Parts: sequence; structure tokens; C-alpha cells
Amino acid sequence: MIDPGFFITFEGGEGAGKSTQIRLLAETLRAAGHEVVLTREPGGTPLAEAIRGLLLNAGEPPEAMTQALLFAAARHDHVSRVIRPAMRAGQIVLCDRFTDSTRAYQGEALAEDALEATILLGTSGLVPDLTLLLDLPPEAGLGRARQRGVAGDAFERADLGFHARVRERFLALARREPDRILVVDADRPAEAVAASIRALVAAHSAIDLAGAGA
Amino acid sequence: MIDPGFFITFEGGEGAGKSTQIRLLAETLRAAGHEVVLTREPGGTPLAEAIRGLLLNAGEPPEAMTQALLFAAARHDHVSRVIRPAMRAGQIVLCDRFTDSTRAYQGEALAEDALEATILLGTSGLVPDLTLLLDLPPEAGLGRARQRGVAGDAFERADLGFHARVRERFLALARREPDRILVVDADRPAEAVAASIRALVAAHSAIDLAGAGA
Repeated sequence: MIDPGFFITFEGGEGAGKSTQIRLLAETLRAAGHEVVLTREPGGTPLAEAIRGLLLNAGEPPEAMTQALLFAAARHDHVSRVIRPAMRAGQIVLCDRFTDSTRAYQGEALAEDALEATILLGTSGLVPDLTLLLDLPPEAGLGRARQRGVAGDAFERADLGFHARVRERFLALARREPDRILVVDADRPAEAVAASIRALVAAHSAIDLAGAGA
Repeated sequence: MIDPGFFITFEGGEGAGKSTQIRLLAETLRAAGHEVVLTREPGGTPLAEAIRGLLLNAGEPPEAMTQALLFAAARHDHVSRVIRPAMRAGQIVLCDRFTDSTRAYQGEALAEDALEATILLGTSGLVPDLTLLLDLPPEAGLGRARQRGVAGDAFERADLGFHARVRERFLALARREPDRILVVDADRPAEAVAASIRALVAAHSAIDLAGAGA
């Protein structure tokens, strides 16, 4: 029942460089001969994208638990149709945000036991093999996100104090699960961050980063 | 913390006459001077209707748990925005389908503990004060639904064997919670069914059916 694939999630606040780092790690992995699947949350399937659209276009924002259940539904579709099949096929899945983002962003509005219940149902118990937490001060991250012109998202419009608390919740998760969640200092040039990530993946997985194709 | 309102759900298979009976009971209650709110599932709010549309228009049907989580999200919106506020305002809420439909229709595809977990999250623990199960053989119900020309729904296209199992699951729920779920023989003329429902509501609630307005 153990999937031959490997599941790595990238977490962190806005502007932490997750999509850049996912792309760079995917290049390294493919060059080493691995099959790689890139995906993201919220989203990852047509139904999950449609659910995301519902949330963004809902007039009055739904209650926090309504949102958590919608995210759980989207995640269940994503896990069952994309992530699990790729892992069964022996591929390496790199996912931009997953359950730890739910914990960090919704942990303020919902009781932990209720939030964990939605996460368990949405994942059917799937836990990432490795999570890379790209950590940087929220001021730096929001500055980067605004430069890209993508700061219009509801999450990004929230105040800096909220983003500081999100960062603290991410770091608290890493302290609680130090074997799974590895903290990467993301307040550095992209290539330095990528080198750290390569070293961490090599040290914390059986993935050969310098395979036949390297 | 006890809401002054009263929450009655109507359950049963296709063509059991739920919407007719809800309308008739609402007329009786309003004539007796009560404030009544009529609602239904799946649906009941703009977001819940949008979620229903997602499910009906999804190309490949989502997995059963994905669907259950979507229903739970829709229900949470419905409960928090419509049902709970009406009950707090002392109104009588009549709802066409609720949690027992989830149990009867999805109980075949999902393990009971997982299904109950989605129900608990979707309702925040709200349980109907009274449930009227309109029971009739599925052949009779489907015949009525087809006469109305509403047999195009995915549920209704399912085979008769499935609908027979749904009926059995409804009846098993009534045996398990006999104080809440009252079985009404719906294979009779509408006015006879309505008279049974009035008698049951009078016997199982503190609602005055012959109030000042009667």
C-alpha cells in the first residue's frame, strides 16, 4: 500500500518565492531523470478551480467553516484525481501550498479540532513526505508580491499583522513536525534558496538528485 | 442557548410528495398565526445553489467524499445563514430534505463514520426537532416524479434497485431515532397524508395548530 512516488509541498507566505523554487527543483529533478508533476492549491483540478472561483466571487464572504469545507472538497478532488495517481505511478509531486497553508491561514478563525477534521476528510489521511517552508518577513514577501502585481487577492489585501501571525503559525507547525517540515530562509537570492532546497531534499529523502540525466 | 424556533425536515424518495406536504403544512401553520420559513436542500442560499450547479455540471462525477464535502459546505452556509437565524427569531423552519437524505442517498458509497463526520461539520451539530419521513414504494414515487416531468435529475435516473435501498436506509434511520423521525404512509391522497402530518406535529411538538388565526 506504500506509494512508490514522493510528495513534496511548498509552503510560506505571499511572495516567498514558492513558484520560482518549485520550478527550479522540478528542473533539477527532471535533469536527474525523475518524472515530476507540478500542481497547486487552491486548485489543481477543474472542479477545484471552479470551487476557488465560487469563493472568490461569493458576494458576502461565507463563514470560516463553510470555506474550510469548500477547500476540503477541492482538496479531496485534487488528491484523488491528481496527487494519488501520480504517486501510485512513481512520480514526484511538487505542490504549491497544501494542508499547512490551511492551518496557517484558517487557524485563527476556526477551532483546531474542527479544522483538523476538515483536513483529515479532504486528504483521506494523505500527509506530505516532505514540506519546505519558505520563510521570510511578511513585509518582504508582500513587497515582492506587489512588484509582481498579484497583490489583489483577498489573502494579500489582509493587514500585515495578519500575515505576521500566519508566519508564526507556519513556524509553530515546523516546530511541531520537525522531521516533515523543513524551514528555508527565503530572504535570499533565488539561487541560494534553491541550493538550500536541493541540499535538504538530498538529505531528507531517497531521491537521487544527481541521477543518470545530471 | 435554546432557540425559540422549531425545525422540521421532510424526507423521502422521489415523488413522495414532499413539496406538496410542506406547502400544506405551511398553510396550516400560518393560519394558526405562526411565522414559517420554507427552504430546501441541496440549496437554500445563493452559494449553496452555486455548489449544486457545480455538482450537476461537473463533467466526470466527483468521488463520493468530494461530493459529501461539497454538500457539507452548502449545508453549512444554509444552516448558518438561513436556518439558525430563523430559529433564533422564533420561526418554524420547514426544510425539504436535510441530513437524513445525505445518509440515505450517500450511505451506500461512504463509510458511516466518514459520512457522519461530514454531517457534523456541515450542521455544526444542528439536529431537526422533528423529521417527517414520507414513505412509499419507489415504483410509485418514480411514477409520480415522471408524470411531473422532473425525472431528469441524476438521482432519479438511478435504477429502481438503488431507490429501494434508499427507502430501506430511510426506514432504518427511523427505527434508530423513533422519537425524531416519524414515518408517514405517503401512498395515499395528498389530503389524507396532510391530515396525518398535522396530527403528528400536534402530538410531537408544542406547536399550536389551531391558534388565534385558525
